[in-house]
Amino acid sequence: MFEFIPPGTRWFDLDSPFPMKRGGALHGARVAYETWGTLDADRGNAILILPGMSPDAHAASSAANPAPGWWEWMIGTGKPIDTGRWFVICVNALGSCKGSTGPASLNPDTGKAYRLDYPDLSIEDGADAAAELVRGLGIDQLACLIGNSMGAMTALAFLSRHPGVARNHINICGAARALPFSIAIRSLQREAIRNDPNWNGGNYDERTYPENGMGMARKLGVMTYRSALEWDGRFGRVRLDSEHRDDDEPFGAEFEVEGYLEAHARRFVHHYDPNSYLYLSRSIDWFDLGETADGDSVQALSRIEGVERALVIGVKTDILFPIQQQEEIAAGLRRAGTETRFLPLPSPQGHDAFLVDAERFAPAVAGFLRTLAHAELLADKVA
Amino acid sequence: MFEFIPPGTRWFDLDSPFPMKRGGALHGARVAYETWGTLDADRGNAILILPGMSPDAHAASSAANPAPGWWEWMIGTGKPIDTGRWFVICVNALGSCKGSTGPASLNPDTGKAYRLDYPDLSIEDGADAAAELVRGLGIDQLACLIGNSMGAMTALAFLSRHPGVARNHINICGAARALPFSIAIRSLQREAIRNDPNWNGGNYDERTYPENGMGMARKLGVMTYRSALEWDGRFGRVRLDSEHRDDDEPFGAEFEVEGYLEAHARRFVHHYDPNSYLYLSRSIDWFDLGETADGDSVQALSRIEGVERALVIGVKTDILFPIQQQEEIAAGLRRAGTETRFLPLPSPQGHDAFLVDAERFAPAVAGFLRTLAHAELLADKVA
Repeated sequence: MFEFIPPGTRWFDLDSPFPMKRGGALHGARVAYETWGTLDADRGNAILILPGMSPDAHAASSAANPAPGWWEWMIGTGKPIDTGRWFVICVNALGSCKGSTGPASLNPDTGKAYRLDYPDLSIEDGADAAAELVRGLGIDQLACLIGNSMGAMTALAFLSRHPGVARNHINICGAARALPFSIAIRSLQREAIRNDPNWNGGNYDERTYPENGMGMARKLGVMTYRSALEWDGRFGRVRLDSEHRDDDEPFGAEFEVEGYLEAHARRFVHHYDPNSYLYLSRSIDWFDLGETADGDSVQALSRIEGVERALVIGVKTDILFPIQQQEEIAAGLRRAGTETRFLPLPSPQGHDAFLVDAERFAPAVAGFLRTLAHAELLADKVA
Repeated sequence: MFEFIPPGTRWFDLDSPFPMKRGGALHGARVAYETWGTLDADRGNAILILPGMSPDAHAASSAANPAPGWWEWMIGTGKPIDTGRWFVICVNALGSCKGSTGPASLNPDTGKAYRLDYPDLSIEDGADAAAELVRGLGIDQLACLIGNSMGAMTALAFLSRHPGVARNHINICGAARALPFSIAIRSLQREAIRNDPNWNGGNYDERTYPENGMGMARKLGVMTYRSALEWDGRFGRVRLDSEHRDDDEPFGAEFEVEGYLEAHARRFVHHYDPNSYLYLSRSIDWFDLGETADGDSVQALSRIEGVERALVIGVKTDILFPIQQQEEIAAGLRRAGTETRFLPLPSPQGHDAFLVDAERFAPAVAGFLRTLAHAELLADKVA
């Protein structure tokens, strides 16, 4: 009931049982994905994209679904991730409500939605599911693994747990572990949902739905996805016009920035499963690549094997995954022997810049992938 | 029922009616205050402190109330605000629930608490009330007006509306107007309270009290009062010990940072009136000194007359009142002809640094006040 699956979605069946990092297993689980471009005969031109927490697998338009994707300007023929050259896969996160098996999916044991019977979800589970998909598509090694935000965490877990499966890596607005300010933000988002009487321990339906809680959670999210600087220029102190204001509502919205948040919330609240939100949100808090190295994330990163080149991009106005965290990723990958470029961008849009700042992100990604393409052609000739 | 008044509080009756900036008036209203030190015969040694949104007038211990005040290290004999030299007044904000007339006070028209019948509250109303108190205490001119956070906004309104009533000024973590990121934060805090079914349009009682909403609002507040940097060092990824965790609570608190926020919320929720919170919070959003100068706050600041010297302090890690806003205040006051020192401090504690970073704030305030004392002694001799 609370799954939101774009047309054109394809599915891959995971091993059953699919064991989960923190215990338990999924039975008959699957991940949703889409692809663009053509896999070469030697299966060497695949790029896998691991998205953030909310997006589905529909990163770009396709014949099966001509609607624009969430990274439309990034993926396509002649675009930075050039589908004339690369075979591009985007996989919806395990635990999401956008096609991959999550709390809103049917539990084969009961014939009803899992809800809170879904097992504890970790970032590492998403990484393992993505690695199974890659192998399932007959790909031994990805030319490049790209991760954004939560997906950039998943990418680090992927590289760490499945060495050699990705030859190159682009890490965008990522982190090797969750830090307390962002944990606090997400904890508050979860509290907003849990406090909503309609959440009801995960047992809501369309008529009694935790609308207020989801709205609060989304607004708090949007606030930390953007930046104060951007909003100063964009909204200033401009008031909502009277048709977007309810002057009889005590302490109701009055400023444009409040209307913007409200509009974001409205678009989200009934298009994302609240339980999925809780599971994925907590998986981010739990993530700490350093777990495998006595809590030292740089040390854990330095043990990642087999990645030739990496591009690590951060945004200076990002308050959710602050730039120091991308600096740390780059430092760790360098210690791992990966030829790493760290690119701190001055985009004003904060964490979300990778979704909207095409001007800065497009040339960065295009340049890195062009270098890879050249290097690989050269390697082919030498071989 | 929801007023929280420290022992030793004194009251000053405001003019009745007391007209409010946005319309309406208060009848029989009063402000709560405390004083320390002795007013000179020439009444020239008075310092008025305008606190932030939540503190009461008990800024320091006194004979009437020996409990430590919220600025205990700042005020007292031999302390930065030296009560051996200065007569120090601290006034609780109009609209608060800590002694001054606010939504939790009795409405003389009905014999019941105002609740939402309290008139629209503006920062300027608090400034006018404070100016009445100063005159009421027989003081023509303050030696120095000190404002923190919301109180620093009130101080700017005071200087602008009551020229010549303050000879010198210390502005701490203030702003000449609310900007969209902080408006969004406060809007969300108000939404958390309004969404709580127990808020009930302002008609709660002790048994049906908007505890969840107030808790959320406070946590969101505390997050923006401190800084990510401080929390990285203070909490990292440390887990709560088992006695502070309820493992049966789905998605319950697990990290120390979550326990810290919960403890802050618990201390606040039943010690602050939710309606007062809403009124004061919105008054901050509404504040724009630039209103009087076609939206140009620097221009408005440059029209402030009669302030000889000012010290403007900001904190580089403050995300609620970012340092650019204190820079703007300093620029405006300089254009007004005030000899202004702008002091950007590297305190890691964010907006709240002025409450806790004695090491940096004590010498700054002490130094400025010593300069004043010397200058005034000199002026006395010359005269």
